[in-house]
Amino acid sequence: RLKDLVGEAHEADMGDLIAQLSSDERTRLVELLGADFDFNALIEVDDAIRVEILEDLSPEQVAEGVADLDSDDAVALLEDLTEEDRTEILDKLTPIDRVALKRAFDYPDDSAGRRMKDDFIAVPPFWTVGQVIDHLREADDLPEDFTEIFVVDPGYHLQGHIRLDRILRTKRGVPVTEVMEEDVRTVEAGEDQHDVALMFERYNLLSAAVVDDAGRLVGVLTVDDIVDVIEEEADAEIKALGGVKADEEISDSVWTTAKGRFGWLFINLITAFVASTVLKSFEVELEKMVALAVLAPIVASQGGNAATQTMTVAVRALATHELGPHNALRIIIREVMAGFINGLAFAVITGLIAGFWFGIADLGLVIGLAMICNLVAGAMGGILIPLALDRLNADPAVSSGPFVTTVTDVTGFLAFLGIATWWFKI
Amino acid sequence: RLKDLVGEAHEADMGDLIAQLSSDERTRLVELLGADFDFNALIEVDDAIRVEILEDLSPEQVAEGVADLDSDDAVALLEDLTEEDRTEILDKLTPIDRVALKRAFDYPDDSAGRRMKDDFIAVPPFWTVGQVIDHLREADDLPEDFTEIFVVDPGYHLQGHIRLDRILRTKRGVPVTEVMEEDVRTVEAGEDQHDVALMFERYNLLSAAVVDDAGRLVGVLTVDDIVDVIEEEADAEIKALGGVKADEEISDSVWTTAKGRFGWLFINLITAFVASTVLKSFEVELEKMVALAVLAPIVASQGGNAATQTMTVAVRALATHELGPHNALRIIIREVMAGFINGLAFAVITGLIAGFWFGIADLGLVIGLAMICNLVAGAMGGILIPLALDRLNADPAVSSGPFVTTVTDVTGFLAFLGIATWWFKI
Ligand SMILES: [Mg+2]
Ligand SMILES: [Mg+2]
Ligand SMILES: [Mg+2]
Ligand SMILES: [Mg+2]
Ligand SMILES: [Mg+2]
Ligand SMILES: [Mg+2]
Ligand SMILES: [Mg+2]
Ligand SMILES: [Mg+2]
Ligand SMILES: [Mg+2]
Ligand SMILES: [Mg+2]
Ligand SMILES: [Mg+2]
Ligand SMILES: [Mg+2]
Ligand SMILES: [Mg+2]
Repeated sequence: RLKDLVGEAHEADMGDLIAQLSSDERTRLVELLGADFDFNALIEVDDAIRVEILEDLSPEQVAEGVADLDSDDAVALLEDLTEEDRTEILDKLTPIDRVALKRAFDYPDDSAGRRMKDDFIAVPPFWTVGQVIDHLREADDLPEDFTEIFVVDPGYHLQGHIRLDRILRTKRGVPVTEVMEEDVRTVEAGEDQHDVALMFERYNLLSAAVVDDAGRLVGVLTVDDIVDVIEEEADAEIKALGGVKADEEISDSVWTTAKGRFGWLFINLITAFVASTVLKSFEVELEKMVALAVLAPIVASQGGNAATQTMTVAVRALATHELGPHNALRIIIREVMAGFINGLAFAVITGLIAGFWFGIADLGLVIGLAMICNLVAGAMGGILIPLALDRLNADPAVSSGPFVTTVTDVTGFLAFLGIATWWFKI
Repeated sequence: RLKDLVGEAHEADMGDLIAQLSSDERTRLVELLGADFDFNALIEVDDAIRVEILEDLSPEQVAEGVADLDSDDAVALLEDLTEEDRTEILDKLTPIDRVALKRAFDYPDDSAGRRMKDDFIAVPPFWTVGQVIDHLREADDLPEDFTEIFVVDPGYHLQGHIRLDRILRTKRGVPVTEVMEEDVRTVEAGEDQHDVALMFERYNLLSAAVVDDAGRLVGVLTVDDIVDVIEEEADAEIKALGGVKADEEISDSVWTTAKGRFGWLFINLITAFVASTVLKSFEVELEKMVALAVLAPIVASQGGNAATQTMTVAVRALATHELGPHNALRIIIREVMAGFINGLAFAVITGLIAGFWFGIADLGLVIGLAMICNLVAGAMGGILIPLALDRLNADPAVSSGPFVTTVTDVTGFLAFLGIATWWFKI
């Protein structure tokens, strides 16, 4: 009954079903299905849910499920467990599987070595297309699905690759060396998944060979997994810019959500207090001319918004490698000039509104000058801060925001109140 | 000389080279290379650069280049031209190519019909695997590269599909109906590319069949193009949240950049003035107690930051369809409660700092209460505004920001100054 219902479902749909159950029901479902449960479904659920289920099952049960998975999926399944839990499960596997998975976990987090499948088809260069086809028909330990075949020498050094359509279109007698393409895109196992994803995008790849330090073929990366990497990285970038941790999930509880967001809010509170010390140092002037207190937040916020635009473009272009040492200077100049132009435009607009609103023409002039200063400062902060963080190997998407806000709040208050104090001789 | 240098380069690298040339050099390079120039390279450059080059070339030259492209690439090449320029080029093509491309342009922008390749391999259900292989070896008008073969009835209704690895592993005599999988993932030609991309991600697809209104197979979508769609959509979402237009490019000039960013800044200026009217209505109170002017921006900004976190999560989850009618209520409640919890936490922290800073204990109480109000208001705005915009079919990533800021600025100022006026009986 249950097995029939569930047996037909795609792993992604099954994952959705699991996500909608309560904690207890999840583990019961997996145990009820027993050997019929496809552990691939667990890869499709949020990390926290997966870890919870795996911790509820016995290491033997998990090991049995892992044995049916591709190596890349097994890594994805076990990656978020504690070292200890993971070792317990790995110890229940066959020696071959254990060694292969342990090797994958030796590569750094988010590296090509973690995402690759260790199962691929490699043939020697002296074979003919016919021999390849016979091998594919007869061997029974071949990977589930594949789109290319690698040609390697006895030391597993890559000679070339052949796409399946080429094999299908070629007569049996032709040697593989004649149909293979020699310029295979290879990836080193230690390379970061972000750079690998950029390569797949750029060269429209379906798969790429992964080689170890010695240049030996050790695995293959396939585009379906790279699609997930791209989505994951985009998700992390968007969340980072919005001050949310990358691992926050829609399934998180109130408490986890609140706790996770506290840190970023705390840092921003500090920057807000820093900006307020500027206001406090002008207490006397604010008291004498309360219009300044009404208008100061406008200058700060307009600078902050312009800086956010620049920062967004900078963070994005750094992530896609469109911004680098070769064009940094041009972009810095462009941003500062664009900031100056919009500064001028908003100086006029804001100046007119403020002047008429308070019936003080000079106030319009003062806020206009401050607006220009702050939009230029915002542009400089918005581009230089991400560039500096990137140079320091910090993630600019995560850390730029608070610095940039501080720059525009402080500059905005300081410029507006400073110019006002000087002009009105308060 | 030039031809040798350039002939070997991958289209993506060639695209980079073009992007680095000046306007004049670009057109000259294309003209110099003549028939050796691969128009695929133009698909890899920024839209503005592509349009400029195409406008400099004669319609005949472009038509010649287009003739060598896959249909999806031809669409990508011509998509950003004016209707008129495009028609001029299409008229120079062979009737078959012209009709095919015109049909693609009849589908809406960003639809599956625009991204599909109209070139695919379809075989009748009564063939054997051997017949398929012979067809692949002998036919000379086959698509360049493909990963699956479709099985269709005489009316081009899809019966199933076969992955190439299945064909390679099967004996020649087996009928295709025995090796084909019947549950093909199909996409309607009018479907939005965003939904198609989600489907590819979810089911780890390499390709999907595109069918027209009558259910006839009209094209195929391949994952390499979907990778570009995912990247494009992520780019647009990040930019939208940062107040930058999706079509802004790193190659844009100062003037284009400044002009493009003006609109969003203008809208935000209006919201800043709206918030200032609240401050202005408390002019008397601000004058009597200048500490309020120093602290008010802290309340507003902290609420704004908390709201941005909630808004980011909401926009993201709407885009990935993780947030929908089925769980909206749970997420609204979670966000409001998380806002309340962090409101309490920051009420205590901000209250203590403010109380000691100004030596007025009551001021700490007042700012604390205002902080709770504003973080709850921010949470409500941050989740309800994106949900409402999504319901109204507006893009929440583009439009949420200014509304959300208005909510937290107005609530922040109103709550803090209102409570202060009442408590201190100013
Ligand atoms: Mg998720
Ligand atoms: Mg993970
Ligand atoms: Mg799999
Ligand atoms: Mg990374
Ligand atoms: Mg691409
Ligand atoms: Mg995989
Ligand atoms: Mg671009
Ligand atoms: Mg485009
Ligand atoms: Mg192509
Ligand atoms: Mg769209
Ligand atoms: Mg996937
Ligand atoms: Mg394509
Ligand atoms: Mg702000």
